[in-house]
Amino acid sequence: MQKQILPYLKEMPKGLNGNGIQHKTVKGSVYKSKQKSRRQRWNIRPSEMSINTLNPIRAIVDGMKLTPNPEKPMIALSIGDPTVFGNLPTDEKVTQALKDAIDSNKYNGYAPSVELEDIQTSKNLLLSSLQDVVLTSGCSQAIDLAITVLCNPGDNILIPCPGFSLYKTLAVSLGIQVKLYNLLPEKSWEVDLQHMESLIDDRTTCLIINNPSNPCGSVYSKEHLKNVLSVASKNCIPILADEIYGDMVFPGCKYQSMASLSSDVPILACGGLAKRWLVPGWRMGWILIHDRNQIFGKEIRQGLVKLSQRILGACTIVQGAIESILNDTPQEFYYRTISFLKSNSEICFSELSTVPGLTPVLPAGAMYLMVGIEMEHFPEFQNDVQFTEHLVTEQSVFCLPATAFEYPNYFRIVVTVPEEMMVEACARIREFCQRHYRPCSQDSNELDQ
Amino acid sequence: MQKQILPYLKEMPKGLNGNGIQHKTVKGSVYKSKQKSRRQRWNIRPSEMSINTLNPIRAIVDGMKLTPNPEKPMIALSIGDPTVFGNLPTDEKVTQALKDAIDSNKYNGYAPSVELEDIQTSKNLLLSSLQDVVLTSGCSQAIDLAITVLCNPGDNILIPCPGFSLYKTLAVSLGIQVKLYNLLPEKSWEVDLQHMESLIDDRTTCLIINNPSNPCGSVYSKEHLKNVLSVASKNCIPILADEIYGDMVFPGCKYQSMASLSSDVPILACGGLAKRWLVPGWRMGWILIHDRNQIFGKEIRQGLVKLSQRILGACTIVQGAIESILNDTPQEFYYRTISFLKSNSEICFSELSTVPGLTPVLPAGAMYLMVGIEMEHFPEFQNDVQFTEHLVTEQSVFCLPATAFEYPNYFRIVVTVPEEMMVEACARIREFCQRHYRPCSQDSNELDQ
Repeated sequence: MQKQILPYLKEMPKGLNGNGIQHKTVKGSVYKSKQKSRRQRWNIRPSEMSINTLNPIRAIVDGMKLTPNPEKPMIALSIGDPTVFGNLPTDEKVTQALKDAIDSNKYNGYAPSVELEDIQTSKNLLLSSLQDVVLTSGCSQAIDLAITVLCNPGDNILIPCPGFSLYKTLAVSLGIQVKLYNLLPEKSWEVDLQHMESLIDDRTTCLIINNPSNPCGSVYSKEHLKNVLSVASKNCIPILADEIYGDMVFPGCKYQSMASLSSDVPILACGGLAKRWLVPGWRMGWILIHDRNQIFGKEIRQGLVKLSQRILGACTIVQGAIESILNDTPQEFYYRTISFLKSNSEICFSELSTVPGLTPVLPAGAMYLMVGIEMEHFPEFQNDVQFTEHLVTEQSVFCLPATAFEYPNYFRIVVTVPEEMMVEACARIREFCQRHYRPCSQDSNELDQ
Repeated sequence: MQKQILPYLKEMPKGLNGNGIQHKTVKGSVYKSKQKSRRQRWNIRPSEMSINTLNPIRAIVDGMKLTPNPEKPMIALSIGDPTVFGNLPTDEKVTQALKDAIDSNKYNGYAPSVELEDIQTSKNLLLSSLQDVVLTSGCSQAIDLAITVLCNPGDNILIPCPGFSLYKTLAVSLGIQVKLYNLLPEKSWEVDLQHMESLIDDRTTCLIINNPSNPCGSVYSKEHLKNVLSVASKNCIPILADEIYGDMVFPGCKYQSMASLSSDVPILACGGLAKRWLVPGWRMGWILIHDRNQIFGKEIRQGLVKLSQRILGACTIVQGAIESILNDTPQEFYYRTISFLKSNSEICFSELSTVPGLTPVLPAGAMYLMVGIEMEHFPEFQNDVQFTEHLVTEQSVFCLPATAFEYPNYFRIVVTVPEEMMVEACARIREFCQRHYRPCSQDSNELDQ
């Protein structure tokens, strides 16, 4: 509540202006007769939209008592930023491209936010059904624009559970309802298609699919993606494909973009440089408009263009570098990143698989791994938030409780940390679980026999 | 209208799903009983918000027949981007700061969007009442966030007329009403304070002041700004100070920030690197929160922080360079830019002052000059749009008709073009006016005598 007002205003009797009449007489004003009810005290309130912009991760983390054990150095497995430990630098070609763009002196002015042919013809993004590219300030703005162009207040969108919290944050602030469709951990986080379809009604205007997934690290098969497309097609719902982790899949697994499989469903594919090129701070994102059958048509394109001109998009220096970044980054760079993430994931998975009370789910891409907590074996803790809170207190290891992704009794591990840190963190998690694990009563009966 | 639908959907009888009943029987679905009315044909419409995001400059320019005279090379005096002609490069120190930020490898990750102390203590921005800085993707996002945090749909804001079109574009798309207060060309575009105050009612939640001004090039005196603050104070309206052209004032004139003069009125001062450092494409903007008497309080700050986290703000490389850019750019660079703009403005003003039927208004800063058209002397043209359209057809000179700023019968000249271009453009404008000028009947009587 806004309590701080000026001292002299505090003395002012309340309700002075309640009837809209100004008590003092104003002489000489040619506009006097038009005077309407006005504020006579300061009372500035934040807008509904800002109040309704909620960040569940912040809310949960800020509510936790995070006091690390002073005898153990802190290991944060919570930060979805691959640059924080310095072990995953971007490629030299990428930074050189940026410096070349600066030196060219060609990229200091305003740039159009759409239809950059250089990008469309890049071998990294080229797809036959691609018609337009909208450049944005990071993938977050891409998602924001895509939701904003497709949905009105009162409409609803389908989002994955567990899922990246931004979808809900953006939608709710715009007055758009969210419906959470279940992912199935026992099926490597595939979509529960029947559940998803059951949520669709005539106000459903967008289906969000995140593949590869944050927080799951899952990568969908061609067949599964086709099944998702069938549901969208049958119900005439366009798809927002959040593919910011596109191509970040482990060897042996193949990444398939949603748009490459769609014969009719129109798709707004959101991506960016952040993760694959390891430069999230550069805020370079894009929307690829795939509309093979002209279902979005001119109107949705124009809507996106108009929305993208509200604040303009990405820094022009990065725009100037993007063609080179997409085309000239050596394959070894991608391979090195992916190999590291796979190796770290396997270390983490195999370590935690033998920890009593934990059920990690093996990822196939991105940079995350979800771990289930068999809460019945940890009676000291009420939920994943308490569990991870105490993990900090005792072991100085912080993992994000999956309540932040609307998925209680799991926690998420970010696998971009240096290998020795991952090994140490897993050992500490083991120690923590061994100390707090309690066999269930049934189990203890068995043990007693 | 969205007309393109899939061929097989065209065959589907209309209204099949009008009553919400699915006619086909679905076997085996556990969710069948929950099925609601669903779309059975594609009908994707852009949202109201995207439809209501209007760009008046685009609308007017796109509606004009802009066919230059093939015998004269085109001179565009319409583009508010100082980089387009290459005659106003940014300083080497500025680009070097960016390269240093790249080489440091410290600015590839996510960065907080608020409270960067480095910036607050910069000698260029430091003000005693400053409490927080929110970094944004250009000044456009700064203005967007400031309007969004202060206003709800149904509220109204006061904006200058003539004024930068973005204020209305953003407000209207958010369901916020705009009320235009008059600027007075005969008083160097000072605010008509009585008119402004007459517009205030109990839903007025923000007063936008743009100083120095686009499109006017005006710079307000300390006294005038104090008078504006008095109106805001008396009516308890916070100010959004668009100061993107701050410090871009001609020698002999002094720029005064709104916040430096306010004793009580809380101010969101929006600025950025775009114009003073001549790098609009870099999309580096900010909101300085000035709240001497804690009237915004924690709530507005938190609201801004929450809104700024929706899409995160500026590119981290530019963020990494900003301290150096603000502190180390040589004074000579600013001086050189300002001297050039002043000289070009004077050339333009003195040339057009002697052109029959035109009344240019001398600017004191920024990079614009407004020119009145005595339409009664140009009976061939109905308005400023037709006038500037024919100026292109005959003389290949394009100036933006001020109808784009809701101010008919004027046009705006951008004074960043190379001097020889400005001289040539003025000569062509003179030729155009001499050809089309008609003395009014009264004048012609005088001439006949």
